[in-house]
Amino acid sequence: MSVYPIDEMIQKFRTLTKQLSYYGEAIELMAWDLRTGAPRAAAPARAETIGGLSEISFRLGNSEEMEQCVQAILTAPEDQVDAVTRRMAVQADRSIRRSKQIPPDQYKEYVILTSEAESVWEEAKAKKDFTLLAPYLEKIIDTLRRFIPIWDIDGLAASHPYNVLLDAFEPGFTVEELDRFFALLQERLVPLVKTIASKSLPEQPWMGLVVPKDAQKTLNRTVLQAVGFDFERGRLDESEHPFACGLHNTDVRITTKYVETDFLNALYSTLHECGHAMYEQQIDDQYMKTNLGTGTSMGVHESQSRFWENAIGRSRSFWDWFFPIMSKQLPDALGGQGFEDFYRALHRVEPSLIRIESDELTYSLHILIRYRLEKALFDGSLAVRDLPKAWNDAYTEILGVTPAHDGEGVLQDVHWSGGAFGYFPSYAIGNVYAAQLLETMGGQIPDWREQVSNGDFSAIRVWLKEHIHTHGSAIDPKPLMERVTGSAFNPEGYIQQLTDKYSVIFDLNR
Amino acid sequence: MSVYPIDEMIQKFRTLTKQLSYYGEAIELMAWDLRTGAPRAAAPARAETIGGLSEISFRLGNSEEMEQCVQAILTAPEDQVDAVTRRMAVQADRSIRRSKQIPPDQYKEYVILTSEAESVWEEAKAKKDFTLLAPYLEKIIDTLRRFIPIWDIDGLAASHPYNVLLDAFEPGFTVEELDRFFALLQERLVPLVKTIASKSLPEQPWMGLVVPKDAQKTLNRTVLQAVGFDFERGRLDESEHPFACGLHNTDVRITTKYVETDFLNALYSTLHECGHAMYEQQIDDQYMKTNLGTGTSMGVHESQSRFWENAIGRSRSFWDWFFPIMSKQLPDALGGQGFEDFYRALHRVEPSLIRIESDELTYSLHILIRYRLEKALFDGSLAVRDLPKAWNDAYTEILGVTPAHDGEGVLQDVHWSGGAFGYFPSYAIGNVYAAQLLETMGGQIPDWREQVSNGDFSAIRVWLKEHIHTHGSAIDPKPLMERVTGSAFNPEGYIQQLTDKYSVIFDLNR
Repeated sequence: MSVYPIDEMIQKFRTLTKQLSYYGEAIELMAWDLRTGAPRAAAPARAETIGGLSEISFRLGNSEEMEQCVQAILTAPEDQVDAVTRRMAVQADRSIRRSKQIPPDQYKEYVILTSEAESVWEEAKAKKDFTLLAPYLEKIIDTLRRFIPIWDIDGLAASHPYNVLLDAFEPGFTVEELDRFFALLQERLVPLVKTIASKSLPEQPWMGLVVPKDAQKTLNRTVLQAVGFDFERGRLDESEHPFACGLHNTDVRITTKYVETDFLNALYSTLHECGHAMYEQQIDDQYMKTNLGTGTSMGVHESQSRFWENAIGRSRSFWDWFFPIMSKQLPDALGGQGFEDFYRALHRVEPSLIRIESDELTYSLHILIRYRLEKALFDGSLAVRDLPKAWNDAYTEILGVTPAHDGEGVLQDVHWSGGAFGYFPSYAIGNVYAAQLLETMGGQIPDWREQVSNGDFSAIRVWLKEHIHTHGSAIDPKPLMERVTGSAFNPEGYIQQLTDKYSVIFDLNR
Repeated sequence: MSVYPIDEMIQKFRTLTKQLSYYGEAIELMAWDLRTGAPRAAAPARAETIGGLSEISFRLGNSEEMEQCVQAILTAPEDQVDAVTRRMAVQADRSIRRSKQIPPDQYKEYVILTSEAESVWEEAKAKKDFTLLAPYLEKIIDTLRRFIPIWDIDGLAASHPYNVLLDAFEPGFTVEELDRFFALLQERLVPLVKTIASKSLPEQPWMGLVVPKDAQKTLNRTVLQAVGFDFERGRLDESEHPFACGLHNTDVRITTKYVETDFLNALYSTLHECGHAMYEQQIDDQYMKTNLGTGTSMGVHESQSRFWENAIGRSRSFWDWFFPIMSKQLPDALGGQGFEDFYRALHRVEPSLIRIESDELTYSLHILIRYRLEKALFDGSLAVRDLPKAWNDAYTEILGVTPAHDGEGVLQDVHWSGGAFGYFPSYAIGNVYAAQLLETMGGQIPDWREQVSNGDFSAIRVWLKEHIHTHGSAIDPKPLMERVTGSAFNPEGYIQQLTDKYSVIFDLNR
């Protein structure tokens, strides 16, 4: 029998959770500020403050007090706890059980290690020298290997240790399922890419033409306003690497980077971040300042950014609407290219070395490579020192291109230096989810293409809000996708959509 | 006998104090963000977060744990505690003793009351209707009256309850001393103002001429860079009400407001805030992330802003240097006025209704009026309902001008709605301190005027750093001023400087 009546425990749990959200909001804002405009000399002191508040927040989230509340709620009779509080407790419980067995000093050591590794990565990338980073990666992987059995509250490591890492970013996914998924990608997309790449590549005459930053800013704001990014609840800034950051559904910020000689770069990165941002802006108020007030997983989040970037932003309807606007705002930006040539050029497929610059069709193949290597690192079949060769071999095999040096190869992404193993697959899962959503939405809003070609995105935005956004983290990704699209994960649909789209554009069926 | 060895207590105290600084930094940044560029809809959620973290921080600062550390340090033998830690403990002790007797629920109620009152004040000011605000002010004053005996750890209320409020902003000052000070101001400045105002006022042809914001921005940056505002450790933004905010000595931010038809408005407000900012930028590293890492009092802080705004920024030498630069950057801004006429016009004296728009000479008289009214509100000789009349009478008596309505009278300042009774005198004290510093510095850097007329402000900045800034809050204001200038507070010098300066400009001795 509990000493406290359950209502009191709920009250206390809600208060503690709210306090955690305060720390989260403060830390997010401090990080946003560092990346967008803090004075240069501020970084070290700010990093200490962020670290200090993170530690305080971590302790609070894993405190005895919190655990008692969570246990009381989870063991209370069904009818005494409302659904939202129960879900909050389930999520808190998972987080506590994962964290609490890790010795705090070891965890702190690991945080310092990854923070150092990120700095070393910058240097290694600049110097194209993997050996600088290798010892750090080894230590990170060693530490994660030690943490995996502790984190493994659901017994996922038994079939593969990497499952535990996967589950942290994308609950419900395992090596078994992803092996099948990536095998299918390889089987179906690699030949498609080869076929298209063997045809003559359409020209992109806008590449290299200077579009001044101010003109690009206006263009990007035009798109954001049209698709429904709420400037009353958000802002657009610049940063070296574009990102979205949700402080609250009333304050969601995105950044972009303007490349003067490639104005579509900023446009698509803005649309991408806008997808993330509208997710956060449209989460229901009831989840604010709780642990359910953000997107439910990395994969579902990525589905939103990809949806706006690709399914909408690279659709013919989108350009039916936007091509005249763009031509008017930036009359010289396209080098005189007409609509049809432009639209085809927009879909130029070219296997390349750099993930973040890759096209819609090859993107998931970059993820395939990373998935394969991550898995091998954790089942012991690949040593860190052999990573560069394995990387280059995989690129040669899958994409037919070989890095000339590690800077454009294994050192291109920051993720591993930060310890984010298991994160990459979310990008590909997000692509699949975006395709599922497009298909389902197409059934429910049959004239969406016409609406888009009229510059009306409101029905789409409302549809996404009602089916995905509003729920925040109240529903796990697989049940959510199952409920909305009828399937928890359907890579076939994704591959078919790509095949259909590119077959039309590049006349493959003639 | 203490259970813990003193070193452990010091360590713990340092850790707790550092944590308090983390909260302080996060809260400051969130407040800065709200005032400079946060999305409009973000305000309510952000206010809750700021309030929540403030409460957590307040509890930590007044926790048993903190109190035990502080007591252990203050009762330890002299040689076991370093001077900085001891000073930190003295300051923490004052803060705890002041706070801890206030019942937390009463304090929270008071915070909510003042926060509501600030909103009501905005409305009341817009509607020019004091009766809207009056009930709030009554409640605020009632609450403060209840808090005063609790806050009064030094027995200051015995001679006057208002002493306790004064001491919170400016330790060491009492009604007795300020009565003498303001009497002197009235006796000496009121006739001086009358004499000058009776002469024909010099014209300010720049008033009304449009200077575009971008041109003003460049001008303000030129000045900031020249005087030594460190842009590596700070930034300049815009906000409705200019302010300075110090997150750390590596991150000090100021704002300004550009009025297109009065470009000197932004220039002087920028210089003013820059004075505050350089104080914070030049505090010694050893005080960072402690409770000594900010200016020692409101008055000393204001001395720095006034020093740069008036002592330097309105000196002839400053304009010897800056007039040609300004004329080049903004050739049309002065309406063709030559140096001598401009310099005289810059010192135009005109008794007016609004404190923040008042000139160098009448400024402290606006403070005199507020001081007199605050004192009367707390000794019971003035009721809130009689405040507007008392305000208007005082303006008529001291400045010879009478507000037409409360919007330009008793409702002009936000301070009282926020509960900041006892704050206003700091502005006048700051003016006096600035004059003392100017005199002392003049003895130690005899050619400072020549340096300034060459655009070289470095010796002045270093002098202020060494004598004032570097110490942070390690020394109380009066001992600090005594040490640097030989006098804890010398209003005679301030009045004499003003008299001398204006006598020359307006030929009063002929």
